Amino acid sequence: MAQINKHYTEIKENYLFSDIAKRTAAYTAAHPEADIIRMGIGDVTLPLCDAVIQALHAAVDEMSRQESFHGYGPEQGYEFLKDAICDYYAKRNISILADEVFISDGAKSDLGNILDIFSTDNTVMVTDPVYPVYVDTNIMAGRKIIYAPANEANGFLPMPDESIDCDLIYLCSPNNPTGAAYTAAQLQVWVDYAKKHDSVILFDAAYEAFITDGKAARSIYEAEGAKDCAIEFCSFSKTAGFTGTRCGYTIVPLTLVRDQKPLQPFWLRRQTTKFNGVPYIVQRAAAAVFSEEGARQIRDNLDYYRENARTITDTLDDLGIWYTGGVHSPYIWLKCPNGMGSWEFFDFLLEKANVVGTPGEGFGECGKGYFRLTAFSSHEKTKEAMRRLKNVFQK
Amino acid sequence: MAQINKHYTEIKENYLFSDIAKRTAAYTAAHPEADIIRMGIGDVTLPLCDAVIQALHAAVDEMSRQESFHGYGPEQGYEFLKDAICDYYAKRNISILADEVFISDGAKSDLGNILDIFSTDNTVMVTDPVYPVYVDTNIMAGRKIIYAPANEANGFLPMPDESIDCDLIYLCSPNNPTGAAYTAAQLQVWVDYAKKHDSVILFDAAYEAFITDGKAARSIYEAEGAKDCAIEFCSFSKTAGFTGTRCGYTIVPLTLVRDQKPLQPFWLRRQTTKFNGVPYIVQRAAAAVFSEEGARQIRDNLDYYRENARTITDTLDDLGIWYTGGVHSPYIWLKCPNGMGSWEFFDFLLEKANVVGTPGEGFGECGKGYFRLTAFSSHEKTKEAMRRLKNVFQK
Repeated sequence: MAQINKHYTEIKENYLFSDIAKRTAAYTAAHPEADIIRMGIGDVTLPLCDAVIQALHAAVDEMSRQESFHGYGPEQGYEFLKDAICDYYAKRNISILADEVFISDGAKSDLGNILDIFSTDNTVMVTDPVYPVYVDTNIMAGRKIIYAPANEANGFLPMPDESIDCDLIYLCSPNNPTGAAYTAAQLQVWVDYAKKHDSVILFDAAYEAFITDGKAARSIYEAEGAKDCAIEFCSFSKTAGFTGTRCGYTIVPLTLVRDQKPLQPFWLRRQTTKFNGVPYIVQRAAAAVFSEEGARQIRDNLDYYRENARTITDTLDDLGIWYTGGVHSPYIWLKCPNGMGSWEFFDFLLEKANVVGTPGEGFGECGKGYFRLTAFSSHEKTKEAMRRLKNVFQK
Repeated sequence: MAQINKHYTEIKENYLFSDIAKRTAAYTAAHPEADIIRMGIGDVTLPLCDAVIQALHAAVDEMSRQESFHGYGPEQGYEFLKDAICDYYAKRNISILADEVFISDGAKSDLGNILDIFSTDNTVMVTDPVYPVYVDTNIMAGRKIIYAPANEANGFLPMPDESIDCDLIYLCSPNNPTGAAYTAAQLQVWVDYAKKHDSVILFDAAYEAFITDGKAARSIYEAEGAKDCAIEFCSFSKTAGFTGTRCGYTIVPLTLVRDQKPLQPFWLRRQTTKFNGVPYIVQRAAAAVFSEEGARQIRDNLDYYRENARTITDTLDDLGIWYTGGVHSPYIWLKCPNGMGSWEFFDFLLEKANVVGTPGEGFGECGKGYFRLTAFSSHEKTKEAMRRLKNVFQK
């Protein structure tokens, strides 16, 4: 008899976004005149930039002619895109080889699929609050999970505990959901821990493009020795608005060895066996992100979102509300005012300001009493939402 | 210490296509004047049809404007494409619900990833010769594999052995690599076996569009009760030349229950956790395949390849060489003439006719002494290759 993977029955259903939708719908039904502003959205809103659009049209035209048609490509991605990514790292003085770059349909897929190459006996560490994918994918495989608490005391940036042994370590910086970002010096402590414990760090850098100054690290490889212990996951989703276009890349260094075995050939084997590459036209679009015009245009888009983040953080500063994130990140993680709980503040904000955000406790125990706002709305709506917030709290 | 998945070390390296490339390169180096014709290619060569190209351009334009931009879509695919697929089945009198359809980046990905929802204790049956992905993905998970021999006696269409208990059964029809195709009556025997043994059939229908007459079954769901025991994997790769555009779909019936649990919610959970959907523009392209013009244009392309298959089978008929496939399939699986081994015939054909094909033994023990030719070349090259074959054997 075919048996199901019993670990699937152990996954907790997360009703966070459906609960938000339900409460918002109920409020709207009771107050049809309310002008609701959604500040919980984790998706980009600006269209693809012109350089990407031109690259897509050109690639589609290539696919229309026999002499320039592209069938199966290399599962790990085309050289033109892998080379552009190596250049992107080289500009930051990080040396990545083309063979270490794997093009994928997004960081989420790779963050889940990478587990295939690791033993199910490994113990996993995630931070709390956490992007739920790290937890659910490991429950599916039956791995033991340890939570590292993130809180105001550690600035929502937990550091390693030498007394605890973790085999696989998830770090997301700038963080989803908190927006907090590690410095290279802090990442160095994690790298040193990983090398001492023979752990592997799975570093989610999906939001690295939001980092503006030299303070936060844009890559785990800014820490010395990281290429011996870390895999990095990157995405065009937030960098270039590819959430519906689907492209990411994963760096598996050739020098990353565990059990006396280099991991790169294992990931190559996983990808060549269970994946068939990213659409040619999408890879051309992704490469355009690294062109001179592309880079300028996506910078403009990121600046647009950054201005929203500033509008939000300026307001929170004025109101004396504690927060982290918002500087290197489209996410602002605030402490609910007046000791309110996450859901209490959700209802309060919905009712008093007609603003919808995300209750922090949806991301884990340590998220209780916190709340996430995002910078992906328009300037106008963000300003209006903050005007209302001021109104409510300055009364 | 992070430990690797030890099963990865148990996968045999398959050097089939690299060995072909090496031998061909060596011959070309020694005979630079040789005009090599490649008949081993498993990839399409005709460009995307006009309806698909128009849909791609239109979707790219949508992505360029804020009001029609698409960010994250549903992981399981857009309704417009799922509905088109339900219609495609309905035309063949098969009732599929939109919730049973999962859009993916290709059948290869889903055929590998579906295993996530099944226990590693399950015993797996594959046919021999076999598409290597079925074998390697199960070795990666440590499952026991049973081989059902395909041979001339059973027309390369093995039927179930009641004395053997298999939990997961891979069937590929029309088959890769043999091109043999089951009838609905034959599939009924497999479905009856699966229902009796509580097995799940994983039915790879990637080549269904090549079926021309009503004799071969285009879907496992043509067999009664199949929706209680079978998952079907389909692809736009060979149907519409999407090998480099990447789109497929998988049908997980709501009535498929094992361990008292419906499987559809498990697959939904897998996809929402480890996948983020297919690019919007690609889903629009896939939907265009089902439009009136799209359907006509891809039929023309399939006819082009079918004519190549006929050129090949006519030649083999003339020469009295045994083969299967070529009727419902772009693959022709022939018995090497004069008792030659697969690699012996490879070298013979390369040397005497400057034609490159694929040695059957690369697909399994039962492939020894057989050889695969494909219909994906041009009319001119296919005809020239067959002219040379006749010359060699009619001397």
